[in-house]
Amino acid sequence: MKVVRYAENPLVQPSDIEPHLEQSEVIGAFNAGTAKLRNETILLLRVAERPVSSDNEHVSAVWYDPDAQGLRTLEFNLNDEALDFRDSRVIRYKNKSQWSYLTSVSYLRVARSTDGRHFIVDKEPLLFPNNRYEAFGVEDPRITQIEGRFYITYSVVSTEGVGVGLAETEDFVTVRRHGLIFPPENKDVVLFPERVNGKFFALHRPVPSGVGQPEVWIAQSDNLEHWGNHQHLIGLREGRWDSRRMGAGAVPIKTDKGWLEIYHGADHNDRYCMGALLLDVNNPAKVIARSDEPILTPTEPYETEGFFGNVVFSCGAVVEDDVVKLYYGVADTAMACAQFSLREILDSLTYVEPGAE
Amino acid sequence: MKVVRYAENPLVQPSDIEPHLEQSEVIGAFNAGTAKLRNETILLLRVAERPVSSDNEHVSAVWYDPDAQGLRTLEFNLNDEALDFRDSRVIRYKNKSQWSYLTSVSYLRVARSTDGRHFIVDKEPLLFPNNRYEAFGVEDPRITQIEGRFYITYSVVSTEGVGVGLAETEDFVTVRRHGLIFPPENKDVVLFPERVNGKFFALHRPVPSGVGQPEVWIAQSDNLEHWGNHQHLIGLREGRWDSRRMGAGAVPIKTDKGWLEIYHGADHNDRYCMGALLLDVNNPAKVIARSDEPILTPTEPYETEGFFGNVVFSCGAVVEDDVVKLYYGVADTAMACAQFSLREILDSLTYVEPGAE
Repeated sequence: MKVVRYAENPLVQPSDIEPHLEQSEVIGAFNAGTAKLRNETILLLRVAERPVSSDNEHVSAVWYDPDAQGLRTLEFNLNDEALDFRDSRVIRYKNKSQWSYLTSVSYLRVARSTDGRHFIVDKEPLLFPNNRYEAFGVEDPRITQIEGRFYITYSVVSTEGVGVGLAETEDFVTVRRHGLIFPPENKDVVLFPERVNGKFFALHRPVPSGVGQPEVWIAQSDNLEHWGNHQHLIGLREGRWDSRRMGAGAVPIKTDKGWLEIYHGADHNDRYCMGALLLDVNNPAKVIARSDEPILTPTEPYETEGFFGNVVFSCGAVVEDDVVKLYYGVADTAMACAQFSLREILDSLTYVEPGAE
Repeated sequence: MKVVRYAENPLVQPSDIEPHLEQSEVIGAFNAGTAKLRNETILLLRVAERPVSSDNEHVSAVWYDPDAQGLRTLEFNLNDEALDFRDSRVIRYKNKSQWSYLTSVSYLRVARSTDGRHFIVDKEPLLFPNNRYEAFGVEDPRITQIEGRFYITYSVVSTEGVGVGLAETEDFVTVRRHGLIFPPENKDVVLFPERVNGKFFALHRPVPSGVGQPEVWIAQSDNLEHWGNHQHLIGLREGRWDSRRMGAGAVPIKTDKGWLEIYHGADHNDRYCMGALLLDVNNPAKVIARSDEPILTPTEPYETEGFFGNVVFSCGAVVEDDVVKLYYGVADTAMACAQFSLREILDSLTYVEPGAE
């Protein structure tokens, strides 16, 4: 399959972005949802900012405090015996099983382009943490245009867990929240762009604590806010590129063969790739075909090196006839794009035996 | 507070029940949902059956096989080096992190009484595993009567995880399933008996895999099948009776003070007790008061000894004016009942400071 990465990659990177917070640095601009708004290509970036510490002996945590209704930062001394700093993303008390703070906060910020290759980043965030469920940030948005409005599904992170929020915008200037549509632990939620047999559908990725795996499920709704009839859709595959973790990526694309979903999978080396899945056009809970091999793997330096290397992670594509412009986060750091032929992706899939999924 | 345990306790026990499966023994009849149907008190028992092994060197597993559309049992040799038999409830391969089979299967079976103390158990199950999500059993039902129909929320157990199914009955003879209303990992779902401000409400208990705890959340619905606007309701309390694990129990009781919910909590010794919670009558997402101390603790021999001792676990109560007849599972083995005064429960609660929850 022909994969044409843009020569301009990475298209957006942390150094392109003015920090929104005071005394802060942008460490990531990645995993963006995509939309077409009139003649503009929109990337709704996940921007991660980290407070700059006052000296080398301290590290800072930052979060939204729902009681104070504002951001708080706290400095921790790297010599504090009660704390565990081994994972630079989190601050953990040694006597607790879960982390207590994150060292960066993620929020959603719009980048705009007229050619899909050169982006200008908005001065203000579109969606910044403003409630207890978003206390440690909002992440990895997907955007689905339904009946003229843009619906944003995004991960919310707090000490209550990682769940999924729904928000709505018409112009990518103002946004309205619709609360949590999936409780913890869940993420990677993608809405289908139209009703199927009268119902809205969403792909989601719960993470059970006990038995069960981080796999892709599908749910139904009448109104996009309330979801039910949950069904397991696809599972991890031992020995393959999607053996350890997976989740929906881009908004499903309606084709003459069915709904084409481009999803991510990670293997036991934490290498994140993108592959594809074909679902029945009249019953998206039915899997027709799937990628044996990924359609995109991390090979370029901007994909293999960064905050978390060996990651390509798409939250959205722009589709024009046979051309799929797959926008994707690289190494949890920046944004890139690669072009595919829709027909070539469909032809690359392996058809599933009835009853095998 | 006066707690009057029935002299007839335990009211139903495994020896009262004919096995439904061939070559099987009933090892539990517990955690029953309750309903009033005309002059009858209904207990919808969780019945656990275990295949009788052919000899002392084998142990059997049993499950519903969705491909074969029937039950399967498999015998495992206790000397098999690849297997780990230390937890008698499960069969685990040493090279896997999760269990592969359960040694018993749970299903739902009706017991009927005209005095609330002496029960006769139906000959056939009401709800027996019949799909992939229920492969390892259905557990811990709650029954809510809404607009004349009985809605049953119950845990489904399979290798895909533990989720929550919804079923409906009018007569406790036939039942209709409505699919999964909460994906894994979730259980302890209780529906409110009427709409509040036009919405249905449910309490639920997700278990996040990463950050987050097994705590009680509340969700909204327009149709009982699709749920959203998830909000965290109450959390674990370090050093108290509900420090480790918790979940809703009985159907919320509408009182002049608000919605009274009787819920279970477990501490770090896995002692399960029942306590209470008072929610705003017009906004059940708002906590008004809560039990500092449990209203029921395991003290009687039938509560402290059994398959899993030191457990009182209620899935339903029958309320008549000021009398609360709290039916509850004991030691994951049998059923018991204790009477309370509704007013005394309300008076026992500690009122929460605004903003403290």
